[in-house]
Amino acid sequence: MDELILYSYFRSSCSYRVRIALALKELPFDYRYIHLLRQGGENWHTSYLQINPQGLLPALQHNEKILSQSLAIIEYLDESFPQPPLLPGLPLHKAWVRAVAQTISCDIQPVNNLQVLDYLRTILDADENQCNYWVQHWIVHGLNALEKMLEKTPNPGLYCYGDMPGLADVCLIPQVYNAMRYAVDLTPYPAIQGIYSACMVLPAFQQAEPESQLDAG
Amino acid sequence: MDELILYSYFRSSCSYRVRIALALKELPFDYRYIHLLRQGGENWHTSYLQINPQGLLPALQHNEKILSQSLAIIEYLDESFPQPPLLPGLPLHKAWVRAVAQTISCDIQPVNNLQVLDYLRTILDADENQCNYWVQHWIVHGLNALEKMLEKTPNPGLYCYGDMPGLADVCLIPQVYNAMRYAVDLTPYPAIQGIYSACMVLPAFQQAEPESQLDAG
Repeated sequence: MDELILYSYFRSSCSYRVRIALALKELPFDYRYIHLLRQGGENWHTSYLQINPQGLLPALQHNEKILSQSLAIIEYLDESFPQPPLLPGLPLHKAWVRAVAQTISCDIQPVNNLQVLDYLRTILDADENQCNYWVQHWIVHGLNALEKMLEKTPNPGLYCYGDMPGLADVCLIPQVYNAMRYAVDLTPYPAIQGIYSACMVLPAFQQAEPESQLDAG
Repeated sequence: MDELILYSYFRSSCSYRVRIALALKELPFDYRYIHLLRQGGENWHTSYLQINPQGLLPALQHNEKILSQSLAIIEYLDESFPQPPLLPGLPLHKAWVRAVAQTISCDIQPVNNLQVLDYLRTILDADENQCNYWVQHWIVHGLNALEKMLEKTPNPGLYCYGDMPGLADVCLIPQVYNAMRYAVDLTPYPAIQGIYSACMVLPAFQQAEPESQLDAG
């Protein structure tokens, strides 16, 4: 029997990605809640640094082994528990799905994470308006790129790629959640909006939502 | 006969990654040089936006198909041209190599790219010292994490993972190049320095270096 433990914070969009992937695969797992704001960030406490020396969320423990980096974790889950698959089989289509995932996980999310915003505030003296504008700028920039990519999906359907949710959706939904949190106008993104609506009726996406987490609040 | 065309800029570290991967696999390819600074950025010209609507480098054309996002491209190359492999076969080890690659490609590089630095300068009025300090800060932060990861490689050897260079090295070397460009002190990183030295005696890494490119200067 496999033991899976997810180190998660409700609003961490990288944790959110892994929660969706685990739910889509219907894998039972235990949570360890690591609060990114409380007590100077519980992710910097020694007990968590022993799990992930980088101090980042999420981390996934599978039996005795600990994995980090959300996309590496999700691909590992897909290789270890193949059903339902989160990536297409065809290398060219797999590359497209990964490119969508990386447009989010490399080009949007990292520039807007807590550590970057802390730097803007504390070292560059940015005020809250400037920080909000920063976040919105990179989200809009990224969603513009994503909308163009999704219009040319190699496999049109309900989701980013075809009629089964997969790695691209797992990354897209937490990014749309952040966009809404920062009041980004989604009107220019009909493809993204359609995929978001299709995903959010699925129990796997609902269970993984920040507000459904026990540590939310 | 496969036709491969790489859209590249000598100093783009994402282009540099793909150049190394192509060279390690000894795949012949043609270059298209896209200058990121000249003429307002050739990557924003219509001719390039038809290749990659995101305006980012690199893009790889394989026969009639165009791929974007460096890690997606490299995994595609590894699936399409398996020898020599750039990823281990064991899922747990593969996840570790991908986590190293993503620590660079998600946590360090995107925060320091040209567009972010332009924003700091033009919208937040950061001066050159503040921009340099920003770049150095995120590189040091990332190299600290990487050094700890590399000390615990699941397969100790000459490179990040064992005695064959792979995906993690393909990402690490361009990041070390950037660290040196920004005068980051590498003394605290003996593991990274050792891997860098081991890679830079290999022709594949030498051919891919920014200064070896025809568009350098």
